Formats: sequence, structure tokens, C-alpha cells
Amino acid sequence: MIEISQIKKAYHRIRKYVHHTPLLTNKDIDNYVGAKIFFKCENFQPTGSFKIRGVTNVIQQLKNRELQNGLATVSSGNHGAALSLTAKRKLTTATVVMPSNTPKIKIENVKRYGGNIFWCEPNQSSREKVLKDIVTSENSTIIHPYNDERIIAGQATVALEMIKDQPDLDCIISPVSGGGLLSGTLSYAKKVKPHIEIFGAEPIEANDTFISLERGKIIPNKTTNTICDGLRAQVGTITYPIIAKFVEEIITVSDCEVIFAMRMIWDRLKVIIEPSCSITLAALIKSKSKFRNKKVGLILSGGNVDLDHLPWK
Amino acid sequence: MIEISQIKKAYHRIRKYVHHTPLLTNKDIDNYVGAKIFFKCENFQPTGSFKIRGVTNVIQQLKNRELQNGLATVSSGNHGAALSLTAKRKLTTATVVMPSNTPKIKIENVKRYGGNIFWCEPNQSSREKVLKDIVTSENSTIIHPYNDERIIAGQATVALEMIKDQPDLDCIISPVSGGGLLSGTLSYAKKVKPHIEIFGAEPIEANDTFISLERGKIIPNKTTNTICDGLRAQVGTITYPIIAKFVEEIITVSDCEVIFAMRMIWDRLKVIIEPSCSITLAALIKSKSKFRNKKVGLILSGGNVDLDHLPWK
Repeated sequence: MIEISQIKKAYHRIRKYVHHTPLLTNKDIDNYVGAKIFFKCENFQPTGSFKIRGVTNVIQQLKNRELQNGLATVSSGNHGAALSLTAKRKLTTATVVMPSNTPKIKIENVKRYGGNIFWCEPNQSSREKVLKDIVTSENSTIIHPYNDERIIAGQATVALEMIKDQPDLDCIISPVSGGGLLSGTLSYAKKVKPHIEIFGAEPIEANDTFISLERGKIIPNKTTNTICDGLRAQVGTITYPIIAKFVEEIITVSDCEVIFAMRMIWDRLKVIIEPSCSITLAALIKSKSKFRNKKVGLILSGGNVDLDHLPWK
Repeated sequence: MIEISQIKKAYHRIRKYVHHTPLLTNKDIDNYVGAKIFFKCENFQPTGSFKIRGVTNVIQQLKNRELQNGLATVSSGNHGAALSLTAKRKLTTATVVMPSNTPKIKIENVKRYGGNIFWCEPNQSSREKVLKDIVTSENSTIIHPYNDERIIAGQATVALEMIKDQPDLDCIISPVSGGGLLSGTLSYAKKVKPHIEIFGAEPIEANDTFISLERGKIIPNKTTNTICDGLRAQVGTITYPIIAKFVEEIITVSDCEVIFAMRMIWDRLKVIIEPSCSITLAALIKSKSKFRNKKVGLILSGGNVDLDHLPWK
């Protein structure tokens, strides 16, 4: 469990470097689902996702000797871009190990902020091997994308802002991949509002957290064959116990449901979000009876999507 | 000239029915243009544009006898959708005369809010004839899209919110078509901040306001052959004198420049905007030396764009 004091410290550490993003509302979508939704627009963050929060919280705490040989990570894109920008701000470098099936837009985003890319196969063991080789040769500092209390405390500031701006939320739905955002959300929200219900939204085709909860232990993904390119990682050893203890439920949805929700948000809310966060609205629509007449916060975690290849074309 | 008191009354009249939209910022775009930009996201309004402000201000002042036979207007889309929703809220009906070249998304938007559509040719005389016929037969009340002090006072609340949220703006750039938004912006901003510079942005292919200012009298558009489908109307007899008196300059830009700016906003700011407001960033980019190191408010007036046919495909 991450303490409230850690999260508040993270908030003060990062607030100069990140946006306090708005909570948008839309009556048409509310009427469609029968709930009152507050969309937390983390797609408006620098580098286009919430990942800047956790990364900034870590880097602000690093010592010079940890910064001097550069930083390294594995990332399907958004964490890598956030690390690249933050490294640049700290006058050091970032090396990002990316799976070979990463979308072009996310590769370009890492390059835009000056990150050095190394490729790996799209599986956990290849990710770890390539990263280990780099760290051995460069002596760089690994910044894990989610399995790190400092990262989780940073991501938890999303929930801190949401509850500050809308104190009477009944529920929050967060995407879940490695679990940094969901475990951060749980760590903050369940402590300051014990009756709030927090849900995770996960692709059916990358449902390791759902299966892990069912079996009571961490079970790797069997497939990661989903349009939600940011949700293909495996739940972590630090994030999982927090999720297991506090989450209400993991709602799993299909890619079709994700694309339907994504189009609805683009059409009506007028914000550009990627499939990996459209999943929160897809989960709400799928389980709408659970949320009827409730005030629901949906975390729109990122907006890095290839505008030349939209999924409804 | 619209008085500050009229604008403040409009603000109090409409605030329950419209969003106080956020001002977003983006360091990458700032670096690109060499200015500090505040994007006013009117695309987040109900019906997807600022038009809801002016229309609500009018309708809240109508008497029952003016409401009972329905409302009527001519509109290329956004005003029509705003009128349709507002009519529904007031339990009356809206008839919208639309040019035959209106994009599908804008037609659908009017239908979504229950508006009755009548078609006209895409020119001023056909618009007026069709509208007159309807009003004669239905005895409905005309709500002009821009040439009405109550509409202008409503649109002026965009500038009111911008200056409230960011009091040290040096400039504002507004799109100009019929001139409701630009004359409202001028009426408020030049009164409360006499040194602020207000610019209009207009398509080269529908540059009637630019030409009218050059000649010192209202000159109709020669063409309306522009991707900016919301900017094809002709400047009004009430809006024009306000613009002529207070505007710094009308900056005209090509469709190519509009599409470039639109893509930049989609890519970096992560908000869905239509060509007709991308033109404000296009104008800034075109004349960037004028804005160097200044704090510039850009009005993103609407987000109703066909997601199946994007202009960069």
C-alpha cells in the first residue's frame, strides 16, 4: 500500500511539471449510459499521457550519480515518451526498450523527446533480457514503468486531483495494464473516501489481472492481441497486492466495445484519446446497470493514436 | 457597440446552460510559434461549438408568444444545432435552413437535437428566400446566427471567460465569418483591456471581411470555396462596424495552412477541432513575428468534423 503522505509529497514534487487536467462532462453520453460521468483528461498531459506523473516523481528524487549514466526502461510507448522528456528536462538521456509491435505514433513520440530506442520481441522475457543487456553495458538507472512505489505514488495524483475537483464521486474506472495507475488510484481514493468503488477495465485479450484475481495469484497474459497497445503489460508484484485488496472488480471488454466507446468519445466529447483509455467508457457501457445514477470518474489516460489509421476506417 | 452590462447580463443568463470551457496550453506548439498560447476550447460546449452561448442568450429573453410557433434560422450547421438543442430545452421547435453543401456531420448534429431541416442553395439570396417562405407560413421567430445584439453579447462571454481565467493576455485571435464571435470578443475585450490586440482569421477564399475593411464598406464574398465550412457567411450590418472600429487586423490564410494547423492541434493538443477554428492557429503561424513572446488566446470555436473523412487522408 502506498501511503497518503507519499502521494501528497509526490503531488507537490510534480505539480510544476504536469498539468492539473480538467474533468469534462457530456450530457449526451450521460443520457446514453444513465450515469453522470466525469472524464479526467490525462491525454492533455505533456507527452500525451498520465505517465509523466510517475516518471517525474521518480526523477525528482534521483541523485546525480543515478542520473549521470542515463535512464533506461521498457515501454510500449507512453512511459517511454514521458521518460524521454523528463530525462531531457534533467539534462540526462533515456533509453527505451520497445516491443517490435509498437504503433508508429508511439515510436515517434519517444523520438520526438530525444529517447534512444532499442527493440525487443513483444513478450516479457525478451523485454527483460534486452533491458538487462543495456543496463549492464551502460550502467544506466532503470525506471520501471509501474512496479515501483514512486511511480505508483505519482500516478495516484490523478485520483487526488479528481477527488479534489469532484469530491462526491461514487466510482472511478481506471484502465489496467501493469497496474500502476489502478493501484495508485486505489491507494489514494480508498484511503480518503473508503466507500468509493474503484473498477479496473481490461481487454479480454490481455486479461492477466482479471485472471490473476480469479486464481488468487499473478498469472501471465496468454495473449496480448488487442488494439489497446498500452494495456499489454503484465500486472506487477507491487501493484497486484494493492489491486487484489481494494479493487471492486475488473471489467473485461472486447476490442469492438473499445472502438465503439472510442468513437463515442471522439464524436461527442471532442477529445482525442487512444483505445487503451476508451476502455473505461467501454467497461461502463458493458456494466451500465452497476453505475446507474452514480457519479463516475473515468480516467482518459492517454491520447497517442495514429491519426492516419483510425480503427473505424 | 455592445455594452459591457449587456455582456455581463448575458453571462449570468446563460451560465447554467453552457460550460465554462478550459484554456489549454501546450509547450511544443508554443516553442514552434515562439509565443505562449491559450487555447479556449469552445469545441467542448453542448452541440460542439460556441454558438450555444448566443442562442441561449436570445432564447432566455423570448416571450411565450415568440416561442410558441417555433424558431427558425439559416445556418451552415453549428448555429442550427445550438438552436435545435436550445429550442428543445424550451419545449419549442427549431427549423434550420441549411445550404446544400453542408457537411454530413453538421446535418446529423441538427437532426440529433431535433431540428427540422429545409435546404437552400449555398448563397445569401437563396438562404434568405427559403427562410422568408418558412416564416411567412409558420409565423415562427427568426433567430439570426450573428446579426443580432443579443447573439453578439452571448458570444462575447467567450472573451469574458478568457480574460477572467488569464487576465494578462496580450492578444486574442478569433475566426471571422458573419462576425458574431469576433464583434463580441472586441466588444468585451477592448472595453475591459483597451491595449489588448484582437485579430480576426479568415479564409482567403471567403475573405469578405478582409475586403470590406480594405474598401471601407460591406462587400459580399466572391467565393466560399474553403474547407472552413463554418466561415462561409457574410459579415453583418451590426457586426461589421464593431469589427471595423476595433479590430487590429484580419489575417487571411489558405486551406493548406488551415489543414496544417488543424493536424498540429489534433496531434499535440489532443482535441478535436474543425477547420473553421484551426484557422486561428494557422493565422498565428502565418504572422508569427507579430506575436513573438506574447500571450495569445486562440478561440477554438467548434469541433464538429466528419471523423470518417479527415482532410489529411
